[in-house]
Amino acid sequence: MKYLHTMVRVTDLDASRRFYCDALGLTEVSRKDYPQGRYTLVFLAAPGDESAQVELTHNWDPETYTGGRNFGHLAYAVDDIYAACERLQRHGVTINRPPRDGRMAFVRSPDQISIELLQRGAALPPAEPWASMPNSGNW
Amino acid sequence: MKYLHTMVRVTDLDASRRFYCDALGLTEVSRKDYPQGRYTLVFLAAPGDESAQVELTHNWDPETYTGGRNFGHLAYAVDDIYAACERLQRHGVTINRPPRDGRMAFVRSPDQISIELLQRGAALPPAEPWASMPNSGNW
Repeated sequence: MKYLHTMVRVTDLDASRRFYCDALGLTEVSRKDYPQGRYTLVFLAAPGDESAQVELTHNWDPETYTGGRNFGHLAYAVDDIYAACERLQRHGVTINRPPRDGRMAFVRSPDQISIELLQRGAALPPAEPWASMPNSGNW
Repeated sequence: MKYLHTMVRVTDLDASRRFYCDALGLTEVSRKDYPQGRYTLVFLAAPGDESAQVELTHNWDPETYTGGRNFGHLAYAVDDIYAACERLQRHGVTINRPPRDGRMAFVRSPDQISIELLQRGAALPPAEPWASMPNSGNW
């Protein structure tokens, strides 16, 4: 038995690619259009960790996706949590839970999927602007 | 960067363990109680694939968890999709989308998290009772 992926539905595939790939750092592993079913599937993964994927389902007919409390978040380890948060910010992503402790941050996808970032190994020394940045919204 | 886990919130930790471990086949990797925050975290994984986990968050103060459309499902590859569905059924789990095609099935956790099972490699030959089993509910 093997974990394959977590599937999330996305309203806007371009906005989702900018978030998951450009800002978060995942890469596109594969993509396929299904014209008969009117949807596109895109599989993403962290570089070098292609066996654990995120599946983006984009239904071509517009639908608004709201969240529920039974799903919590997706979590990724990163090599430098400050660099990861800087890149997210540069792409316009709000850092809902800044890494004040040099260890943990939370952001949200365009469809409000919560993403946890955890510093690999020991926490980094506290550093500005993160150390004094307040929480924003919820995650 | 590395995928760590998908977190889901669970109402009943014992019922969730029966579903995710006894019926689905994941194993418990670690568990920790946080009395100050009044919650318990349990990390599960497919045997032999411990690096990709599911985190169950159990808040001790009762809360009802509903779902949202932005989250879709968790997917696992299994060696024998019929055996996997039989074990789920033996534990009282409804096979919402039976593996009529010998390839794909969907079930739901006690908190309505949708789980996709995919036959590893080629689809199995169609077989009863699955081949003629209708869908049940949604997933």
